[in-house]
Amino acid sequence: LIFSGDELLRGDTLNTNQVYLTGRLVDLGLLVTHALCVTDDLSVMCRAIDDSLARKPALLVLSGGLGPTEDDLTREAVAASLGLSLEQHQGLLDAIRERFDSRGLHMSETNKKQALLPAGATPLPFSGTAPGFALQHDHTMLVALPGVPWELKDMWEHQAEPLVRTHTKATPYEVRRLRTFGLGESTVAQNLAEIDWHDPEATIGTRADLDGITLILRGIASPGGIHKLDALQDRITALLGDHVYSMSGETLSTAVGGLLRATGLTVAAAESCTGGLLGKLLTDVSGSSSYFLGGVIAYDNQVKSGVLGVPDEVLAARGAVSNEAAAAMAQGVCRLTGASCGLSTTGIAGPDGGSDDKPVGLVYLGCAVEDTTVTKRLNLFGGRDQIRGRAAFSALDLLRRRLQERVST
Amino acid sequence: LIFSGDELLRGDTLNTNQVYLTGRLVDLGLLVTHALCVTDDLSVMCRAIDDSLARKPALLVLSGGLGPTEDDLTREAVAASLGLSLEQHQGLLDAIRERFDSRGLHMSETNKKQALLPAGATPLPFSGTAPGFALQHDHTMLVALPGVPWELKDMWEHQAEPLVRTHTKATPYEVRRLRTFGLGESTVAQNLAEIDWHDPEATIGTRADLDGITLILRGIASPGGIHKLDALQDRITALLGDHVYSMSGETLSTAVGGLLRATGLTVAAAESCTGGLLGKLLTDVSGSSSYFLGGVIAYDNQVKSGVLGVPDEVLAARGAVSNEAAAAMAQGVCRLTGASCGLSTTGIAGPDGGSDDKPVGLVYLGCAVEDTTVTKRLNLFGGRDQIRGRAAFSALDLLRRRLQERVST
Repeated sequence: LIFSGDELLRGDTLNTNQVYLTGRLVDLGLLVTHALCVTDDLSVMCRAIDDSLARKPALLVLSGGLGPTEDDLTREAVAASLGLSLEQHQGLLDAIRERFDSRGLHMSETNKKQALLPAGATPLPFSGTAPGFALQHDHTMLVALPGVPWELKDMWEHQAEPLVRTHTKATPYEVRRLRTFGLGESTVAQNLAEIDWHDPEATIGTRADLDGITLILRGIASPGGIHKLDALQDRITALLGDHVYSMSGETLSTAVGGLLRATGLTVAAAESCTGGLLGKLLTDVSGSSSYFLGGVIAYDNQVKSGVLGVPDEVLAARGAVSNEAAAAMAQGVCRLTGASCGLSTTGIAGPDGGSDDKPVGLVYLGCAVEDTTVTKRLNLFGGRDQIRGRAAFSALDLLRRRLQERVST
Repeated sequence: LIFSGDELLRGDTLNTNQVYLTGRLVDLGLLVTHALCVTDDLSVMCRAIDDSLARKPALLVLSGGLGPTEDDLTREAVAASLGLSLEQHQGLLDAIRERFDSRGLHMSETNKKQALLPAGATPLPFSGTAPGFALQHDHTMLVALPGVPWELKDMWEHQAEPLVRTHTKATPYEVRRLRTFGLGESTVAQNLAEIDWHDPEATIGTRADLDGITLILRGIASPGGIHKLDALQDRITALLGDHVYSMSGETLSTAVGGLLRATGLTVAAAESCTGGLLGKLLTDVSGSSSYFLGGVIAYDNQVKSGVLGVPDEVLAARGAVSNEAAAAMAQGVCRLTGASCGLSTTGIAGPDGGSDDKPVGLVYLGCAVEDTTVTKRLNLFGGRDQIRGRAAFSALDLLRRRLQERVST
């Protein structure tokens, strides 16, 4: 893969196209060996294309440099590297003109440049602003895509991927994403020590995020390969137990939503340190209004007592960051909204506001399910975002485990 | 830059190290021309190092491949490419052993590998799990850093950057980040058409996010360069007017927080479609408890009427997604919490739940400041995340503009 664009090399833009394309390609059975970002410079780009072709890959994808400006050099670089002329493509010119006309805009002379293609290339229809192209060179299929992420995705999915699937003869992979919460990356590795992580027929990758460790299992999409993956998935699930919350990559919010639907219960949130994040996560799921009733962000202590009914004695004697306050908040939001489950968070998110007694990272969670309330104390590390994120996901996981018990009994 | 790691080429991991390092380097005056991700393969890595050195860069940074496993090949690749032997570094071995001892762990034989260095290399002290190193080869300074993002940042900031600053003689850049809200990328470009975007002494880059367009101005950090940047910043600010909410890169939440402090007002949130996101954004700022009192997530209509006091007649006649409901929510949350300002959101976030009358993307905002309430209707596009994000940021911007008026009059 070659990505052109100075913005990728100046600290301004995260290259999300790389993670997208490499993920799509691995699912097709194509393993990327090199992904290069280069500046918008003709000789640099030509050299990068030459070096790539010298490795004789089945596929070379270029991204970016297809706009109308003088910084857009992909067409020129491909033509120069392959010794091809650039030719105006009439169909493409008409499509570009029509695009301007349909919006009542005038097509400028500079846009004509976008109708140029290396001789023999096939234009890829575009829904955005930049047309792409594909061409075959010896054993390599070369595809040029726009750099704007949504335009790249659209063109990859609808135009390029079907072509690549036909022209390259790779065996597709089957991918499973097992999501876990409550274990660190090294504990996951220890618990799975008896498993061969490097079996080429069923590889295991991990990704660590605030919502837990995801295990990514990949195998050949053949009957034998799928059988092997099934067995691997079963072994991992047995070894990690109830830390696994999804076998299909779904989020913790989606898993909790599924359990709420299954049990017919509803939920409300009472948040102090997470400031609304817990509600936001629960409502990330479309259709969550069928089980999420609402919540109270009780940042100020007067909201904790006045709206949620946390007793003033609790706030005075134990403080807002305490087991007792967390329990009263979870119960209070159930009373207020009529929800059958209440989840609460109260803690010190930092970086300011900590004390010896109650340091930054100390968080209490409350979880009321009908008449029973449990609380949990967390000592979290990291910055404000990590502490708040980890607190909100831990609250979701607390509810998940309680609902899971009800479903299994 | 060379990043090694299969996880960067399988769709699992976003390469955040690239955006971090290129940003730090541009501030030092070092412009990255090539950033390459390669698989964990010795010959691939050696070839990548050879090709990079052939371009005679002032700096070559390697990231990843410094762990104890057989996939960790950076030490071997550097030694092989430069024709150096690998030697055990006693100081490094002691430091690694001490690290294990201090945690009551046993250092295994495989960890000894981490004390190997190419002959002549200087070890870089490490706070994480992987030691790095630096060495000079002809005109190129070569630095090897760990791949784990927080370990890389820590080592770059405390060990590598001071070395690089001394050994390379680049002129640092001065960077300004002007943040705007309410204009699209093309409108920003049109409004700034009279400005030269490619002046090498003061370049302009843009970044588009849900919280608006950021203009990144870069110039040489010399008295003349800074004077030029000041003038450019003034011109842009004059052309974009009150769309600019920050000249120093601060977030919209921070800008709103500053205005609330300046006016001595407090705020509360009443959220339907944003589900807690607005509260989360307001409380992203440490110390926000001095002006943010709390909020109500009124997802269910019973919460809108029962807790916030939205009249049943409004819900029946105009619906929950209406100007009137938005206004009543903003006023209701002020009454409930005692805040002087109330911000509300109600809309259809999708992908389900839209109708001809009220399509996905229709959102009403309410903004009460003391006795005056205004509402705003938005027609947003994109997926659920985009619609909710844009709605929350638009609500913050609505309050920002109203507070700004009070500050300027």
